[in-house]
Amino acid sequence: MTDIKATNVVWHEGHVERATRDALLKQTGCTIWLTGLPSSGKSTVGFSLEHALIQQGRLAYVLDGDNIRHGLNKNLGFSAADRAENIRRIGEVAKLFGDCGVITITSFVSPYRADRDLVRALHDAAKLPFIEVFVDTPVELCEQRDPKGLYKKARAGEIKGFTGVDDPYEAPLKPDVVLKTGEKKLEECVAQLGDELRKRGILKA
Amino acid sequence: MTDIKATNVVWHEGHVERATRDALLKQTGCTIWLTGLPSSGKSTVGFSLEHALIQQGRLAYVLDGDNIRHGLNKNLGFSAADRAENIRRIGEVAKLFGDCGVITITSFVSPYRADRDLVRALHDAAKLPFIEVFVDTPVELCEQRDPKGLYKKARAGEIKGFTGVDDPYEAPLKPDVVLKTGEKKLEECVAQLGDELRKRGILKA
Repeated sequence: MTDIKATNVVWHEGHVERATRDALLKQTGCTIWLTGLPSSGKSTVGFSLEHALIQQGRLAYVLDGDNIRHGLNKNLGFSAADRAENIRRIGEVAKLFGDCGVITITSFVSPYRADRDLVRALHDAAKLPFIEVFVDTPVELCEQRDPKGLYKKARAGEIKGFTGVDDPYEAPLKPDVVLKTGEKKLEECVAQLGDELRKRGILKA
Repeated sequence: MTDIKATNVVWHEGHVERATRDALLKQTGCTIWLTGLPSSGKSTVGFSLEHALIQQGRLAYVLDGDNIRHGLNKNLGFSAADRAENIRRIGEVAKLFGDCGVITITSFVSPYRADRDLVRALHDAAKLPFIEVFVDTPVELCEQRDPKGLYKKARAGEIKGFTGVDDPYEAPLKPDVVLKTGEKKLEECVAQLGDELRKRGILKA
């Protein structure tokens, strides 16, 4: 008992500091928030960036529908309130990952400006870099790609409230990066994001 | 356009595999779930383990009231349903961190067996190690420590539904590790957790 009390003074009472994690990982934790229409190429860009960073020894992680909608947010539907809560929770989780030192890549349509702005504000308050990336693909091209046949279903009225068909997509007013996936190769888009990370000093030597 | 189509075939369509992350980080992502009475020493053990692991070049991260209750779970109260949802969300976030390769340490009273079992089941389904750690400190000692004066308030009736006073704590039936903080030094408790990680092969050479 006396030993425990004596030890008390050297107990760690708080989290490891962010700078210590960043030094360990040789990077700065941050969030790369991909936003754009369904089938605009967010996930493809996100996964390609994740693979490229990991190959370079950087720790990156994609949050997307696969690992969020079936898990953390499986109790949310598609009402206005639930959509906002969906993005809020993703923003909070991205913030935790960023705090841990991870280059966090989120891949969600996130069509509403107010929701994205809230996530940016969360990051600003936590002094974590937030990089809003507009995956700017014309709706015609998205609809032409349509790998899951969702535009087709939305046009047929089988899906209601589908972004780009009968629900609005509010493009970012001041995105940090714009990716024109209809005009550029994937490699170029990924390189553009890599440049942004280097420019911000997120990747250390 | 033709370029993009040609490039399509080499696009990465999915997440980086867990084995690749584990190789990069030289560890296996997992969750160390600390459970115990208020003031039992969960956070002190958790932070000390986090610091020790980071000092050894391992990536560890503590999820606790500080970074969860004020963020992701700030819209939850203390009703039975909200308490269950609180633990469910923490479990889902821990799972995501584990999938990313992080040694994730959670520090929450998590008094109900059913809630903890649900989190274990989530991890089992994801094939992620889940280590339930019972921070087994006698309630008398917790109450004696009481750094935030919460037991005192609960005894005075100022806080209702306080675990250990007027709300039950369901001790784990088969914890993976039991830490007797009333009998052992902090260093010993942390070493015990380190041994468990090594025994499970979570820390690679």
